[in-house]
Amino acid sequence: MDLHSYLDERIALVEQALDRYLPDAATLPGRLHEAMRYSIFAGGKRIRPVLALAACEAVGAPTERALPVACALEMIHTYSLIHDDLPAMDDDDLRRGRPTNHKVFGEATAILAGDALLTQAFVLLSDPDFCSGLSPATLPRIIHLVARCSGSMGMVGGQVVDMESEGQTVDFPVLEYIHTHKTGALILASVQAGGLVGAADDSAMQALSGYAGAAGLAFQIADDILDVVGESAALGKGVGGDQARGKITYPALLGLNEARARARELKERAIEYLAPLGAPAEPLREIARYIVDRGC
Amino acid sequence: MDLHSYLDERIALVEQALDRYLPDAATLPGRLHEAMRYSIFAGGKRIRPVLALAACEAVGAPTERALPVACALEMIHTYSLIHDDLPAMDDDDLRRGRPTNHKVFGEATAILAGDALLTQAFVLLSDPDFCSGLSPATLPRIIHLVARCSGSMGMVGGQVVDMESEGQTVDFPVLEYIHTHKTGALILASVQAGGLVGAADDSAMQALSGYAGAAGLAFQIADDILDVVGESAALGKGVGGDQARGKITYPALLGLNEARARARELKERAIEYLAPLGAPAEPLREIARYIVDRGC
Repeated sequence: MDLHSYLDERIALVEQALDRYLPDAATLPGRLHEAMRYSIFAGGKRIRPVLALAACEAVGAPTERALPVACALEMIHTYSLIHDDLPAMDDDDLRRGRPTNHKVFGEATAILAGDALLTQAFVLLSDPDFCSGLSPATLPRIIHLVARCSGSMGMVGGQVVDMESEGQTVDFPVLEYIHTHKTGALILASVQAGGLVGAADDSAMQALSGYAGAAGLAFQIADDILDVVGESAALGKGVGGDQARGKITYPALLGLNEARARARELKERAIEYLAPLGAPAEPLREIARYIVDRGC
Repeated sequence: MDLHSYLDERIALVEQALDRYLPDAATLPGRLHEAMRYSIFAGGKRIRPVLALAACEAVGAPTERALPVACALEMIHTYSLIHDDLPAMDDDDLRRGRPTNHKVFGEATAILAGDALLTQAFVLLSDPDFCSGLSPATLPRIIHLVARCSGSMGMVGGQVVDMESEGQTVDFPVLEYIHTHKTGALILASVQAGGLVGAADDSAMQALSGYAGAAGLAFQIADDILDVVGESAALGKGVGGDQARGKITYPALLGLNEARARARELKERAIEYLAPLGAPAEPLREIARYIVDRGC
């Protein structure tokens, strides 16, 4: 399969849907909606929504059915970036090569735009049109999954531990905690939620969960490696930023070669998990290869 | 009925439930959970959860059934206070007579504690134990209601317009927009969600919605009046803070007497709406009287 045209197509679907699912700047309060859209349409890689769509396809369901879940996850990811960039947090002026939300709209609006994006994710997940296509038992499972993976014992928890660890000597279990929570949890939620929307059975859900755990960690290691070895343009931010900030990373803890070997091994493991799903899971396999090969 | 013992009892129920529904400080990350609990247990009036419980009772259902919804609404209200108090927003050092969240835990943790409380509300609303007691069609309605009333076209929207209006000359429609959104939307959600949990029929839902609209606005006017005429101890913050900050209020716009008359009129209207619900709605009526009589 041609991954690049697959990704282009899926990303276009996601971006059209995000445009439909977000109030526009003509809806009051206009500046808030402008701020939400500014960060949503700042050119992200759309990894999470693409994974949700691909997981839905992998269990044999139509792509479109997973669009609300895919977009909800992208809204949650985007809110977390807006809040991470705030002066009280990472204090970043640039994100993906553009001024960060608070640089354009001011801190107060950036905080509220993040809050509103997080909330809009749940507006979307409980939308009557979306819910009507699901079995009644599936909807609470999806919302519970997305909320747990985003909250104090998921993404936000990882962010807190990451922040507390800056400039500290951190051991491997703490690093794994940070990554399985800060990035891993939302990637897990994306793949699992895509599977749930696609009405995956228990064995398919197990395959997807195994894939997501391994691929999520591989994705984080690859990102850490990219931060060290370059590709500033691809990241849209300075190289070596993690190190300068005293953030702990895989290459810093394991060395570059060992980190690369670990990412490759996780990629292979992720792909093995998908064996029971056969050909429809090919996009998920290609995404795992793509994620890791960027950095290794 | 004795409103004070009714309130004491319901508040105790809510606080016990909040304690069960929030991870404790022994759960990683401990400091985040401590920060979430600090603001949740800072002695709020619990108006929103009490309204949710009372609305559930008003349609003849057991109080306990509405506890998850009641606590979710209190979490959302509390997150909004934590974010409102931040230096980039109202920059308040005190809330209910205690140091604000960011004063105790630092800005970054306060932002994340707010994010995590908002998210925890949806963890709770999609909890399997809670969902199993509802008809399948009710759950998405409750979540959609709570999310819409909290988001960019509800509470957060009101907060943005309030912020944009500071120090500006504001007319009556803008003031009404601010209050129906910033405070009114969550009060409406509390009453309606309590009714939905209690399986209210359409006419009962109409009675509850009418009540909530009128009582919510009366509550805001009474709060504005209290800010002018005193009761600093009851508010736990300085008197005249709104005026000093250039915030627009009902007494400033209408004069104190006219504002009081408007609050009383809204109270009467709120009570009239409840006529079809009979005796079980008595706590809701008493709450409306109590809310308005504080300030008038």
